[in-house]
Amino acid sequence: MGLFSKKRIYLDYAAATPVRNKVRAAMEPYWSKNFGNAGAVHQEGVSASSAVENARRELARVLHARKEGIVFTASGTESNNLALLGTLQKLHAAGRSYETMEVVTTAIEHPSIISTLSYAASLGVRVVTVPVDHEGIIESQMFDQALTAQTVLVTFAYANSEIGVVQNVGKIVRTVRAKEKEWGTRIYIHVDAAQAPLWLPCEINRLGVDLLALDAGKCYGPKGVGVLVLAHGVVLSPLVHGGDQEGGLRAGTENTPLIVGASAAIVHAQQSWEERSAQALVLRDYFIRELEKIEGAVLNGSVSKRLANNVNISLLGLDTEFAVISLDRSGIACATKSACGTAKGNGSHVVRALGVGEERALSTIRFTLGEETTKADLQTAASSLKEHAVRMRQFAASLSPSPDPS
Amino acid sequence: MGLFSKKRIYLDYAAATPVRNKVRAAMEPYWSKNFGNAGAVHQEGVSASSAVENARRELARVLHARKEGIVFTASGTESNNLALLGTLQKLHAAGRSYETMEVVTTAIEHPSIISTLSYAASLGVRVVTVPVDHEGIIESQMFDQALTAQTVLVTFAYANSEIGVVQNVGKIVRTVRAKEKEWGTRIYIHVDAAQAPLWLPCEINRLGVDLLALDAGKCYGPKGVGVLVLAHGVVLSPLVHGGDQEGGLRAGTENTPLIVGASAAIVHAQQSWEERSAQALVLRDYFIRELEKIEGAVLNGSVSKRLANNVNISLLGLDTEFAVISLDRSGIACATKSACGTAKGNGSHVVRALGVGEERALSTIRFTLGEETTKADLQTAASSLKEHAVRMRQFAASLSPSPDPS
Repeated sequence: MGLFSKKRIYLDYAAATPVRNKVRAAMEPYWSKNFGNAGAVHQEGVSASSAVENARRELARVLHARKEGIVFTASGTESNNLALLGTLQKLHAAGRSYETMEVVTTAIEHPSIISTLSYAASLGVRVVTVPVDHEGIIESQMFDQALTAQTVLVTFAYANSEIGVVQNVGKIVRTVRAKEKEWGTRIYIHVDAAQAPLWLPCEINRLGVDLLALDAGKCYGPKGVGVLVLAHGVVLSPLVHGGDQEGGLRAGTENTPLIVGASAAIVHAQQSWEERSAQALVLRDYFIRELEKIEGAVLNGSVSKRLANNVNISLLGLDTEFAVISLDRSGIACATKSACGTAKGNGSHVVRALGVGEERALSTIRFTLGEETTKADLQTAASSLKEHAVRMRQFAASLSPSPDPS
Repeated sequence: MGLFSKKRIYLDYAAATPVRNKVRAAMEPYWSKNFGNAGAVHQEGVSASSAVENARRELARVLHARKEGIVFTASGTESNNLALLGTLQKLHAAGRSYETMEVVTTAIEHPSIISTLSYAASLGVRVVTVPVDHEGIIESQMFDQALTAQTVLVTFAYANSEIGVVQNVGKIVRTVRAKEKEWGTRIYIHVDAAQAPLWLPCEINRLGVDLLALDAGKCYGPKGVGVLVLAHGVVLSPLVHGGDQEGGLRAGTENTPLIVGASAAIVHAQQSWEERSAQALVLRDYFIRELEKIEGAVLNGSVSKRLANNVNISLLGLDTEFAVISLDRSGIACATKSACGTAKGNGSHVVRALGVGEERALSTIRFTLGEETTKADLQTAASSLKEHAVRMRQFAASLSPSPDPS
């Protein structure tokens, strides 16, 4: 560590963001002062429920949703679970058997979607996984063909958490709605928008989806609070049973401070996403250019349809898990893939799904920028990674047998 | 309100507690400074996961559990859901049909148990509800008879959230273990201990149960974080699917600040429960004596087997929902029953189950004491309630037709 504790360069904002000062300030009164149970009728309860309902109203306004369509959960993961299982279980409760339900998803989803759908499959639901193209965009023809009159639910990420690829939500929605009309069926569309609020518009009516999942901890709000936004007319079964909180969709005492914090964070994120994106884009593209100078570096995912803060490259032939550790020692925080999938090892299932070769799936490195990121940070990160890559290649070369002189 | 804002007298600690200063201080570094994702491998991630694992270790030590047996959830309600559905779904996943499973519970449980078991019943599980006696104690003979070779799970509250009655856990555990031996079956015992940590010992090995659910928001910790404690060898299915957090039992980015806060709160609660209980008991009994001076007042639930902070009386013939509002206007916060059940109206299902008459179930009022409660607070509360009761009875009398002089 040396004598001086060097300033860290944090480039893992897709995994976690700090809580914004004004968000922390918004939560502050609800820890020990206005701490009442929002379900109680006395003044302390009313003060808590007013805070919760104001937070809900503000968020609904910004997301163009109805106030009743805002459900606070404990994470983006829980929001995704509630969207998927809540939809399927509601249909099941209404008399439809799981065996007659089909869900269409993609090959590049987050573990909270993959695992939940694999649970749904264990109940008998048919899960159809549509491929993406080399850039990570959903194959529209394959997608169209995957839809059938049995399809009840479509789920995909608005923006991918590993490679930042942004799907054409409008196009997918139009396709689904046309099929609904053709078959006279109802197909719920869910988007996992955990990575979106800081960088993309998230108004649910603009997107035209039925279910939109958000995570405050990924946009300068507190961890441990998510939101599921429901379009008008969408009905779900709850996953957590008990009191009538959140319109009966999620039991448990309202978490006043975190709900207030989540609303403040997402509202702030959405009010300024355009300027934020425009600024980050310049830095991102500078960073991509710098990284591409490294031998064997190749960008994963589309350049044009991409989150303004996401850079994901493969360094062919390099052990990037070790590169992440080496950069960390140099004061730079980045990742190989999603933190929720880290434990699994075995490369990136997202990059593998691009069909660009196993070597690329095994050598990913992800940098995600935040509001605090400067050009100097990125310059340092690029040269540190370059230095590491050169050193490792030299080391590897020194281990190779010298060419036979004969 | 007048010129002076009078100090409020808060007597609804069973519904919500403020966050203790030292708990807030323990959480503080994790909002914006050590904000990393505990699943990440870099320094920011390691700092977060160390905090989470230290919190888990400390809590395990105090609860005499294994570190791996501490699962952090988002509420007491979620802990109860995970305990019940996690057990039943695990058995189901192992090949046992829901129709062959029986669960034994009692008539005085919290909505998070009642609703969850009603969902389990919809899956085919047989739910057997054992009555309690006039004091709220589980009828041991009826309980014994309810157990069968099909029983897979027993669930009851360690201390009831409305009337504060404390069950004889040891006796129930011995009965269940004897039956297990006799039949060669496995019966999981779950206790909802949400109301316990401040007032009763919660070491899981001492209690002898398999599953113990806690809620930080009820013991001077933050809302939105619960704990499920698992005895050695207990395996569950998760309710929320995704990443491998919490040993695969609950997916979603670890909520570092709230996990740290929950551990600090429960550890503090448990380290000093005896002194706290002894002090509260004196106040509680003084308060009961004062309240019993009110015409028509009768204590609900056992006096001797009762939480040190719980006073629940019925005021026969009085509209206690209105009494709570009237007391609130006089600066006193109390409740008719559990905040999670408030929306339902219709009296107290707990007091109804005591079999002491419908009138008592319809006229309950609950006062729950906290560390801040003083004798003067209780004196004021008792005289305010008495005043209200006298006024209401006079008003009612004035409406009655005068006795026929003939």
